[in-house]
Order: sequence, then structure tokens, then C-alpha cells
Amino acid sequence: MPKTILLVYAHPEPTSLTRTLADEAKAILTAEGHRILESDLYGMGWKAVFDGDDFLSRKRTDRLSFIEESGAAFAGATQTADVAEEQAKLIAADAVIFLFPLWWFSFPAILKGWVDRVFAFGLAYGYKGAGNQYRYGEGGLAGKRALLCTSVGGPLQDYGARGINGSLEQLLFPITHGTLFFAGMEVLPTFAVYSSVAMTEERMEAERARWRQRLNGLFTDAAISFRTQNDGDYPDQHCLAEDVAPKQYGITAHVRGPETFV
Amino acid sequence: MPKTILLVYAHPEPTSLTRTLADEAKAILTAEGHRILESDLYGMGWKAVFDGDDFLSRKRTDRLSFIEESGAAFAGATQTADVAEEQAKLIAADAVIFLFPLWWFSFPAILKGWVDRVFAFGLAYGYKGAGNQYRYGEGGLAGKRALLCTSVGGPLQDYGARGINGSLEQLLFPITHGTLFFAGMEVLPTFAVYSSVAMTEERMEAERARWRQRLNGLFTDAAISFRTQNDGDYPDQHCLAEDVAPKQYGITAHVRGPETFV
Repeated sequence: MPKTILLVYAHPEPTSLTRTLADEAKAILTAEGHRILESDLYGMGWKAVFDGDDFLSRKRTDRLSFIEESGAAFAGATQTADVAEEQAKLIAADAVIFLFPLWWFSFPAILKGWVDRVFAFGLAYGYKGAGNQYRYGEGGLAGKRALLCTSVGGPLQDYGARGINGSLEQLLFPITHGTLFFAGMEVLPTFAVYSSVAMTEERMEAERARWRQRLNGLFTDAAISFRTQNDGDYPDQHCLAEDVAPKQYGITAHVRGPETFV
Repeated sequence: MPKTILLVYAHPEPTSLTRTLADEAKAILTAEGHRILESDLYGMGWKAVFDGDDFLSRKRTDRLSFIEESGAAFAGATQTADVAEEQAKLIAADAVIFLFPLWWFSFPAILKGWVDRVFAFGLAYGYKGAGNQYRYGEGGLAGKRALLCTSVGGPLQDYGARGINGSLEQLLFPITHGTLFFAGMEVLPTFAVYSSVAMTEERMEAERARWRQRLNGLFTDAAISFRTQNDGDYPDQHCLAEDVAPKQYGITAHVRGPETFV
């Protein structure tokens, strides 16, 4: 069945690996009959900085609270047009693919600013005005899939289970778990191309094949098994129950089968 | 002995908790005789997005490679004035304090963009043109201290060792380890104020006292004991030696005494 897929990508160079993989995704998914929406952040001149100008009408003019104004602007349709358009694409999408170069082990600022501005109170957090009642598996973006596709300058071994940078999936936990799963999305394991600074034709061919396979599995591959907030693992909605992942601490405790998350 | 301390802060609201803590830091450190440098990112209208305009003269005009152009611009003094000024402050500083609201478990985009643009090739990575020879404890920012000071909307329990968000120090690992320690800085444990959305006068008084104590220890408190690249733990500069932190995987393996890093 045809689906709608949003590609959000963050590189200004059309021949970059990031853009090449975005082009590839568009071609493959279109050929499969899906509808593609695109957010070419550099091309759009996306405003990265979340500030007072994001609120066309202020709830309070004496003091700027982002949470308060974000909630009021989202509910009252007084957001800026660029933010409302991105939210409309996001809401229309069955899956969102984020494509970016890994800069300092995270999103480039322009992509972080897309999250800061588009993931409004009432949509991606504070869903239904119910505080943190709906998060981590539930929320405004529930039912959608998410996939990170990142090009990494350094070699795979630096990002392995014992690699000096820390493992890639753990480095991206604030995004996959804390942002996408927080808002209700099912998050697929990250697709990464390593040693992007020394790409060869031959290796690129293999990476393309690997990428095609991941795109084919966009709606069928198993998502990362992050623990949902409201299915018993967190009885008070704050902390893991004592008998869940006993004696495990930190971020890996929030994945079922933490041995799969290194 | 008087030191030079750079405060980099990222909130547009003068009465925000972030700015209150920045003001407090300035007052206390100035009273101790230190010299304060400031980067008020919102006030400066800091350009968050790293793009082709960052390079006043391009090494290659046919294709934009950030690493290549960053290295050429830093070495050839063809960076933009705003970036060069921030680097001059950074180089002059004995310690850098980053103050920010925690947005989606990370830096706000404007602060991520400060790192993306200011942490140039040749300074914060690719030091001495020697690839990754000098990183994690060595590099262009060695000898400096760094401290994150973040205001967090949610409660402490959500960020504890078994808290649903994952522990704060692990969430910030891409910044503390992957950015600041990567470039050679000694990174202090993060100072966080939780439940910032429901601050009371009484609690604020206690937080101020806690903050004063941390500021007093800026040059004497123990840093996070991240493992240095070139002191034997990573014989090949990529992976942990087998007998170092045996059977530990992921980000915590890169801290001496990982039980302190949850």
C-alpha cells in the first residue's frame, strides 16, 4: 500500500554523501509507489534558531517561556508559516527519514533547530495538555516510523562496542529515544556509512545496496525495542520498576535486550 | 591566581534560569578576581548554521567539503570575523562554562551551531594536521577546563540511574566526551537544575548555593575521568585494549570507574 514518506536532509552540497543517499531514497521509494515529501533544510534556508520570533502572538509579553508560548502558538495556530508547514508534512507522513552528516556525534545545528522549532508543545511533548502522561511510545507522532541515515567521517571501529567514540547507537540515544520515541515514533536502527571522508566507488556500490535493503524494510524491519512508558515497566511514569532490568543503570536499561544496543 | 573564564550562554530571556545562572557566575567569578569573557549567543544574533558562507575564500569551488574548507580557512585566516572572535576567546580562556536550557536532551541549535562553526579543523579536531593522532585528552584545547550548566524542565528522578529519560551525564556524553574532551579539555561533572518549570524562591536559594560551590571548585574539582587516547588504554588509537574494562561495552567503558558515570 502506498505510504507517505518525509525526507528531512541537512547538507548544502548536492554531491555530498548525505544528498546522494537522499536522492537514492527518493528514487527507490517513488518507484515503489510511495509519495515523497521533502525538507531540504539548507535549500529552504531553514531558520535554525528557536526564538521569540517563532510566536506571532505572545501569550505573555513580559517574559519569554518557550514551553508556554509553544503550547499557545500550536493550539492557537499562531505559529510561523515555516513551522506549520513542517508540522503538516510530519503529520501527513507515515515515516520520516532524517539524513545528515554526523557533526560532533549529533545533528548539525540546522537539523537540531528543525526539532527545536517543529516539535511543539501539544504535538511532540505535552500531548493532550496532559504533561508527561503520553510519551515514550505514545504521543502526537505515534504510529509513525523514523529512521536516521548518517554519514560518518571516521571508521566503523571507532564506533563499535569497544570503539573510542562510544557506540553510534548509544551516542544517538538522545535523538532516537529522547526525541523520536519520546514523541511516539517507532525508531529503526540507525543506518550509517562510515569512513565517508575516504569513499571509493566500490565501497559506495556496496553502501547503496545496503541502503536499498534498509529502504525496502522501512515499514517491516524491527524497530529498536525501547521500553514504552505506559506498559508496566515504569509504574510511576518516572523510574524503572525494581524487577525490570534489575541492576541495570543508565541509557541501556531502557532498551529491551540491552545487549542489542551497543 | 586570576584566570580567564569564557561564559557561553544560550537563552534570549534575561530573567530565564539560564541567564540568572550566567549572571551569578559572572558576579562570583569577577569578585574572585577572574577575568570574564562572554558569548551571549542570542544577544549576538549568532549564526547557527555552518554553511558555505563560513569560508571567505574557497579551497575548492566545485564541491563543498566542510572538513577541507574548515582546515584551509582556519590555517589561512579566511574564516568569518564572528568565528575568529569566538576562537580567540576560547583560546584565551582557562575555563569555559556553557549555560543552556536542555532541549531534547541536548544543546539548543544556536549552541550546537557555535560548536559546529567554532570548533574548526586544526583547532578542535585534526590538530597539527595529524588526523586523529591528538584527541581525547590532547589537542588544541588541552589544558582548559569545561563545565556544562543546564536548566532542565523535568524532575531529577526522570534523569537518575534508573530514570526514564536515561541519566543526564550519559545523555550529554556526545558533548562532554565527544566534543569537549575530544578537543583536549578537562570536563567537570555537569551542573543541572531540575524541575526548572516549577521553580520556587526557596529552592532557587538552595540552587544558588550549590552553584556558588561549583564555581568555587571550577579549577580544583575533579574532572570526569574519561580515558585518554594516548596513555595505553587504546593501543591502536581506535579500540579499548582487551584487558582494559574487560567485557564493558558502549559509552560507559570510556570512563575510569564507570559506576560513577550513571
